[in-house]
Amino acid sequence: MCVLYPIYFYQATQGAVGDAVYPQFVQIVEVGPRDGLQNEPIKVPTNIKIELINRLVAAGLRTVEATSFVSPKWVPQLADGTEVLKGIDRKPGVNYPVLVPNLKGLDAAIAAGAEEIAVFGAASESFSQKNINCSIEESLVRFSDVVREAVNRGLRVRGYVSCVLGCPYEGKISPHKVAKVASAMVDMGCYEISLGDTIGVGTPGEMDLMLSEVSRLVPVNHLAVHCHNTYGQALANILMALQHGVSVVDSSVAGLGGCPYAKGASGNVSTEDVVYMLHGMGIETGVDLEKLIDAGNFISSFLNRPTSSKVACALSKL
Amino acid sequence: MCVLYPIYFYQATQGAVGDAVYPQFVQIVEVGPRDGLQNEPIKVPTNIKIELINRLVAAGLRTVEATSFVSPKWVPQLADGTEVLKGIDRKPGVNYPVLVPNLKGLDAAIAAGAEEIAVFGAASESFSQKNINCSIEESLVRFSDVVREAVNRGLRVRGYVSCVLGCPYEGKISPHKVAKVASAMVDMGCYEISLGDTIGVGTPGEMDLMLSEVSRLVPVNHLAVHCHNTYGQALANILMALQHGVSVVDSSVAGLGGCPYAKGASGNVSTEDVVYMLHGMGIETGVDLEKLIDAGNFISSFLNRPTSSKVACALSKL
Repeated sequence: MCVLYPIYFYQATQGAVGDAVYPQFVQIVEVGPRDGLQNEPIKVPTNIKIELINRLVAAGLRTVEATSFVSPKWVPQLADGTEVLKGIDRKPGVNYPVLVPNLKGLDAAIAAGAEEIAVFGAASESFSQKNINCSIEESLVRFSDVVREAVNRGLRVRGYVSCVLGCPYEGKISPHKVAKVASAMVDMGCYEISLGDTIGVGTPGEMDLMLSEVSRLVPVNHLAVHCHNTYGQALANILMALQHGVSVVDSSVAGLGGCPYAKGASGNVSTEDVVYMLHGMGIETGVDLEKLIDAGNFISSFLNRPTSSKVACALSKL
Repeated sequence: MCVLYPIYFYQATQGAVGDAVYPQFVQIVEVGPRDGLQNEPIKVPTNIKIELINRLVAAGLRTVEATSFVSPKWVPQLADGTEVLKGIDRKPGVNYPVLVPNLKGLDAAIAAGAEEIAVFGAASESFSQKNINCSIEESLVRFSDVVREAVNRGLRVRGYVSCVLGCPYEGKISPHKVAKVASAMVDMGCYEISLGDTIGVGTPGEMDLMLSEVSRLVPVNHLAVHCHNTYGQALANILMALQHGVSVVDSSVAGLGGCPYAKGASGNVSTEDVVYMLHGMGIETGVDLEKLIDAGNFISSFLNRPTSSKVACALSKL
């Protein structure tokens, strides 16, 4: 489902701030079970992954990225993609996208019952080379086959663009480059583009510039943001994205994971902290924060690591 | 110095966001040596406090809250206020405010060479009772004597209002109450009011509402924000405050401290993370981030605790 929510005036205040428009509803794309767990040092058993996904859906999340169908040679943590997808208690109205790098992965995903896939591109040449071993141009050609085939077979396709606010190898990334890659992925059939600050270096200044540029080529209702909290900037960046009209936000329960290929890229923004902010702003998410915190505590406890969510930490202490 | 900086258009973007105005310069009020160290479990020797303050000033900070002249019975960590104030290498153009609760404290502060003091009020009745043992009304009467005397003796006075976005005892606080307390403190002679989210529960929604209300009674160029990161919301709240035209931000190097009287109130927002955000938005602070990180690492290392600054953590790792 790609529901486009109406935007409305958050509240009447004086001056410039009152002119900001916020989405009434923000759709959270929970990436913990995939982007999170693939980057945790402990390999999580299939039944725990299934339990985590079921708990996240029970907490009200309507899009939970479940796993990936990438070669186990590259991502051994998610080698059980088929078992996970087949094992979860699938609820109507819930999306369980899976990451797919190529046609082989697509076949496996469809065989396991996937109805939505995600493909993964980059706005940085060096990152593309290091992460998926080809240039951006080559990656787009490769994806276009996957996207076309997926769409032909009735699947929905989400596109990731990484390094949108900076690259660990080449530093600053031109917003125009991000816009071109995002636009190309929409043209090939992606219904939504998730703009990833893979190494968390961006501030609301860069987010503002980048979204201004990207939204010239891709309508904002096809954009999501995917922020890492490595430099503590994630919520401020998300606030800026909301002010641009973005109403889809990726996040990871308990702040699980990061990106193993990006130096210093620990720390997806935690879903709990995002939901807390949104609810405090009067923006609906459909998520029950208490159940969400329980789900985060469940997996953190299994991984024997503290939660990265400040909200979970504060509310569990009180 | 209370320089009022001009505001300007941050950048031209499309739609609502481009209408946001940001300060060109933000003055950081570094509260680590006072608000931070008074809440750390380890008592820090005088020479280390002096070294910390000198390093913070060398990093470019122009306002460093140095200590307090509160009874050592209440705040034993800062019993050496006189020695600290006399020991630091005072630079021209730098403010070294000290917290003062009463006339006795004021005398001691002046004897030690203070040129600026801060008084501490609350927007919550219960918090006022528990923190300073009197009602808000009584506290204002008490402060007015201190402020009058300080102003008569040529000092500048800064006013804190705590619990502006929520109270650990009574929950939500009316923005109108905050506005009235802030306004009363300006009327008695405070040149600036620092609005404190003492327990860090606020989101940009509450910050927006509160600042809209307060700025009806107190001009925004007399307002500062003092955010805690307990729920991870501090930078997003500061971004919202900037959009309201606030150009003074309190923060604590390495995220030192919290508030011992407020349950779960750990975590001042770290100066490093604030400065990183501001610089990324093209807003000047006069602070050298590298030297600031060094100062934070110096005190964290002494306290044998990890820094709470994500930026310090990320940049020290790289």
